[in-house]
Order: sequence, then structure tokens, then C-alpha cells
Amino acid sequence: MKVFAVQTQAGTQMINITDQLREAVAETGLADGVVTAFTPHTSCGLTITEGNDPDVADDLLRHLDRLVPKAQPHYRHAGGNADAHIKTSLVGSSLQFIVKGGVLQLGPWQGVFLCEFDGPRIRHVWIR
Amino acid sequence: MKVFAVQTQAGTQMINITDQLREAVAETGLADGVVTAFTPHTSCGLTITEGNDPDVADDLLRHLDRLVPKAQPHYRHAGGNADAHIKTSLVGSSLQFIVKGGVLQLGPWQGVFLCEFDGPRIRHVWIR
Amino acid sequence: MKVFAVQTQAGTQMINITDQLREAVAETGLADGVVTAFTPHTSCGLTITEGNDPDVADDLLRHLDRLVPKAQPHYRHAGGNADAHIKTSLVGSSLQFIVKGGVLQLGPWQGVFLCEFDGPRIRHVWIR
Repeated sequence: MKVFAVQTQAGTQMINITDQLREAVAETGLADGVVTAFTPHTSCGLTITEGNDPDVADDLLRHLDRLVPKAQPHYRHAGGNADAHIKTSLVGSSLQFIVKGGVLQLGPWQGVFLCEFDGPRIRHVWIR
Repeated sequence: MKVFAVQTQAGTQMINITDQLREAVAETGLADGVVTAFTPHTSCGLTITEGNDPDVADDLLRHLDRLVPKAQPHYRHAGGNADAHIKTSLVGSSLQFIVKGGVLQLGPWQGVFLCEFDGPRIRHVWIR
Repeated sequence: MKVFAVQTQAGTQMINITDQLREAVAETGLADGVVTAFTPHTSCGLTITEGNDPDVADDLLRHLDRLVPKAQPHYRHAGGNADAHIKTSLVGSSLQFIVKGGVLQLGPWQGVFLCEFDGPRIRHVWIR
């Protein structure tokens, strides 16, 4: 298992972790197989989206703010971050990738993102 | 493959299955690797969210009811549970976990939940 | 790694790929284990839903159109397909399946679908 840390800088933020993920996969020495990336938090998630235009990832963030607004009367969790937990379940906590010839296989437009929903914090990503 | 059953008790309900999952993983005898949990249904899902305060999981349930209301004019499926199927696709039918030293690796706040969207029923979780 | 192609025919469309997936898994020769299906695109996803009544998959499509409408003032991505990218992150880009005795294990109602959100296009699914 490899671990890397991500320092987020805002309450909600999309962070492109493709390069860190590629490095972590290279360090595992895996030639061919499947890699799981897992984040051990409940208020940030992992997703794949277009990585070339940062507006795409930010559109996801802005739209999730509309789908799951902060501070709704039906939220009962006292922490004030019910929205962050709900968003995390919608995008998910883990991703799977195919590795071939030691290289993480992604489509030409795909980038891998950590989705911060309750930052800023130090987040971790586990690779196996 | 290990299988365990979950008896749900309401139309929609979040059931913390972390302990059952830990036991099933221990029974597999796997020391280090990745475990897949998969539910073979189309109106219940699996998700990871905060497991210490049950309000967090219930907030997800209540918010999904708002995002995907029952009985909408644009639903054409005759079963009356179109909402349950849509919610299942949003949270997903499977999860992946890293196992290290025979122990399922979760963050300190993470709990694993079966999301019942069309109960009460007996549901199954497959582990591999 | 096996690859198969899917020609979609509409802007948004749910395509049942269960048979193609079963064939691809059979071709891998895997007897027991876990298979990952991954789509290398950022405007189409993969999901599991009820496969017997096509209305169920179409209900998901129609409801996603309501949750993530086309052309919103808060979308900044210039490509005009911000909605397709957001929907893809909500349903996800990969799925995992358990294989037993060489056979892909699904529940009796489950079908596997490619969700086209910005078609028509030729899409690919990677299997490992």
C-alpha cells in the first residue's frame, strides 16, 4: 500500500492528482493489473473528469453546490457539514484503474481529481 | 466468494454493515489485497459515509428523497419504484476496500452502509 | 486487457452492454476473481440498473436531465457539454464484477449499461 497526502486550500476544491497517482503507481512496481485508489475520509471524494480545462472540474463543484446546498432544514447532523458527507457519497470514495506495461491507463481527456467538500484540510489517498 | 444477508425494516433505510463486512473479510483469510463488496439488487446500493453519528447517513437518505422524489410524471417504469432504481445508480452497487494484515482498512470516521431504497426486503452482499 | 466498442445513436442514451461484457469476460479466460470495466471517456459513464424493462434505464436518463440540465449560467466550460461531464462523475467511469466458474455474477434483475451523455459517438469499454 502506498499513501500520498494532498493539502487542500479552500472549503470546496477540485485538485488534479493525476501526476501523484501515476508516481504512486510507478512506485508499486506493478506491471499489469488493477490499482485501487481509496480516500479514508467522509467529506472528500475521488472522481475522474476532464483534466485539460479546469473549468470542467469547477463546473462539477458549482453544480454539486446547487444539488446539495449547505445548511438545509432537513439536515440533522450537528457538524454543519452534512452537505459535504452527501456529496462524498454521490461521487464516491474509491476509483479503479487498469495498469498496463507499468503505466496507468487513462483516456486522453481523463484526469483524476480529489474533491474537497469540507476544507481546507490535509487529505490522504491510499493506493493498492 | 462470501455472502451475507441483511434484513431491512423500512421503505428507505441506511444500515451500517461495517461489522458484517469485517467478519466476512476475516473469513476469506485474505492477508493483503483488495476486497470487492457487491450487491446483486437494483433498488438498494452500497456507500461509505460517517458511521459514528447515524444522522449523517439519514441526512443522505432524506436528501436523496428530495433529489429523486417518488412518483414523478416523467417516470415510465410501471413498478412504482423508479426512484429506487435511480438512487441506486447514483450511490452505486459495489465498493472496494484495501485489506492489510488481514484487517479491512477504513478511515476513523468511515462506516460502510447498505442503502435500502425499496424495502423492507432481505438483501444480500457478495464479498470477493 | 480486452476492449470492446459501442456505437451510440443519440445525444443521451442508455445501452445495455451486458452481453458484450459477458463475452469479453469469457474471452479473458478468468475462472474466479474480480473484473474491472472502465470507460476512458469523460462524457459517458457505466452503471448497473434493471435490465429487463428498458423504461428503468430511460427513467435514469430523463431524471439526470432534470438534475443536471443542459446550458446553465453557472457552467463555465466552453465545450457546451458541461452537463455530460457532471453526469459522468455522478454515475462513475468504472464497475467491478465478481466472476465465479468463468461466469460474470449478476443479480437476476441487473443489467450493465453504458450511459451516453454526449453522443452519438463510438465509445470504448476496457476490461481487465
